[in-house]
Amino acid sequence: MRTIPVQTASAKYDVLLGHGLFAGLGKQLPKFFPDRRTKFFFVTSPEIWSLWSDRILKSFGNYPPSVLFLPSGEKHKRLAEIEKLAAQLSAAGADRGTVLLALGGGVIGDVTGFLAAIYMRGIPYVQIPTTFLSQVDSSVGGKTGVNIKTGKNLIGAFHHPRVVFIDIETLATLPASELRAGLFESIKAGLIRDRALFSLMEREQEAILARDPALLDRVITASVRMKAEVVGKDERESGLRMILNFGHTIGHAIEAVAGFGTLLHGDAVGWGMLAALEISRMRGLLEKEYVRAVTAIRAYGLPGLPELSAKKLIASTAKDKKNSAGTRRFVLLRTIGAAYVVDDVTDAELLAGVNAILKPARL
Amino acid sequence: MRTIPVQTASAKYDVLLGHGLFAGLGKQLPKFFPDRRTKFFFVTSPEIWSLWSDRILKSFGNYPPSVLFLPSGEKHKRLAEIEKLAAQLSAAGADRGTVLLALGGGVIGDVTGFLAAIYMRGIPYVQIPTTFLSQVDSSVGGKTGVNIKTGKNLIGAFHHPRVVFIDIETLATLPASELRAGLFESIKAGLIRDRALFSLMEREQEAILARDPALLDRVITASVRMKAEVVGKDERESGLRMILNFGHTIGHAIEAVAGFGTLLHGDAVGWGMLAALEISRMRGLLEKEYVRAVTAIRAYGLPGLPELSAKKLIASTAKDKKNSAGTRRFVLLRTIGAAYVVDDVTDAELLAGVNAILKPARL
Repeated sequence: MRTIPVQTASAKYDVLLGHGLFAGLGKQLPKFFPDRRTKFFFVTSPEIWSLWSDRILKSFGNYPPSVLFLPSGEKHKRLAEIEKLAAQLSAAGADRGTVLLALGGGVIGDVTGFLAAIYMRGIPYVQIPTTFLSQVDSSVGGKTGVNIKTGKNLIGAFHHPRVVFIDIETLATLPASELRAGLFESIKAGLIRDRALFSLMEREQEAILARDPALLDRVITASVRMKAEVVGKDERESGLRMILNFGHTIGHAIEAVAGFGTLLHGDAVGWGMLAALEISRMRGLLEKEYVRAVTAIRAYGLPGLPELSAKKLIASTAKDKKNSAGTRRFVLLRTIGAAYVVDDVTDAELLAGVNAILKPARL
Repeated sequence: MRTIPVQTASAKYDVLLGHGLFAGLGKQLPKFFPDRRTKFFFVTSPEIWSLWSDRILKSFGNYPPSVLFLPSGEKHKRLAEIEKLAAQLSAAGADRGTVLLALGGGVIGDVTGFLAAIYMRGIPYVQIPTTFLSQVDSSVGGKTGVNIKTGKNLIGAFHHPRVVFIDIETLATLPASELRAGLFESIKAGLIRDRALFSLMEREQEAILARDPALLDRVITASVRMKAEVVGKDERESGLRMILNFGHTIGHAIEAVAGFGTLLHGDAVGWGMLAALEISRMRGLLEKEYVRAVTAIRAYGLPGLPELSAKKLIASTAKDKKNSAGTRRFVLLRTIGAAYVVDDVTDAELLAGVNAILKPARL
């Protein structure tokens, strides 16, 4: 088992990473919550629970945890589900001595983390991510939240987990499309801050997509380390942390305009990175590394984009949460491994970036 | 204008108190939010807005703020309203450079504060309380939240305002019943930590109920100072802050069992304090001060209780948020001005306390 420490202005916790961790989950948890009266509530989807419940329940022995279900899918990442889960917790007697265990992908993690942030004004929770994307990205850093009809993650809170358990064994059952989409977040991690990770992913693309366990371990570890370091320096996204949004401004716009759920989030970020690389190139950045970055992204196999209006995409970026008092924030790449934030990207540049991905012949 | 500083582990802000403050509101706000691009959004009820909008809008001059409405009443303190307001903010282009202004009573303050806590994972807000209860209690200390069907304030966040404006002039239009109910929170402030405030309220009861401005100023100032001091020492309610819940355990149970909205919150707290005084007396505390405390509360004119089941009241206290890992927290009075928290109150004691108020002949 590997331990990656996370330390921010307000929290300190470990990401525990290994093969077969779930078999020891029930034994491990009391190390983090020594009060014997602690009540544990899993929040998970029926599909995930049916895969892992036998092994997990066995590890809890004679003290079985409670289980609450959230149906699968982004459309359930809403306040109405938070309210239902809170009512179930309250009816089951959950108080401030309760700990939530988020077992699943990004939606489960974001919803459970937000529920923990606001149930009785805050109770602890644990992230147990079961998808590649949630393992390398959303389970670390304390961002939680839900969607409203006018935008993704517009409602949420910063609330760090007390500990994160990543069992790499869960990746064996992950659909190939989800693994690939998740890998774009690791490519992003490499592009913005870890040249060695980028080179590894460039070089070992075939073995990674074939789920070589040792390589997945290395990619996840490097991605989590990068994120932990950035979040440790800028917990509340007042500066450095914004670089994590490389590819996300246009990625989110693609998701919004195409209709959420049309593309996988990671794939939208893949396309968003291509657009951001184009804008970086136009500003004279990157030089020959432009081709290297674009080639690596394409090598991981982006699915085609639906027909989208460039105008609508650009209008949608104006609603980005990173904007403040009217200025538009955007992340560019100086070289592979070095990102920075600007607030002077023009509509013309955005249009060129977006057109480059809408008319792929130009890339 | 009077300034009461609040300083907690995570926040530092002032409560500004005076007559006619609203006439200068638009001029004062930029002192706290110097960025000229800051967008201000009032959240208020149509009734409150119709009373104060002329004066307030005049003070903003050529930079009118936006206004969002929340209908009056506790029944609108729900997640569904949070979602509606968030969608309105987002549609109006509110970003992280936006500041919410909560103009109204406790419901407006709690909903607006919670909306500010979770909109884009947190934006600043200002409390501008217009009822006595919200001026002395809910506008200070950072507790925000909404109700769910299984309980009051079960969903919420700690999120402090950047500044609090209390215009005592607003009390001139407050219904007498609301003033009286609010005064029970000030009596509580005196009972738990400020003997001088309690004596003042005991002595000047008639003039206070007649809204003598100088006395209201003194009562509000002392109440806010007491709360600021307690919250400063224990922001997250891990110890001392629990004393603020004197009278609230049974008070909340009364509200829940009678049906929320049947009694005013302050009146329920008045009854809850009588029950808590009875339990304190039975433990040999208070001695002759028992009669003095009960007499003062009664002198402010508690309206009668509806028929309530003692059993249901006790069952309802088990759901109190202050409980942790199964223990039941309760606040007792040692003497007037000195409260403390216990977790060993028995069902028999609770029953006796509750029976004392359900069968008033015994008090």
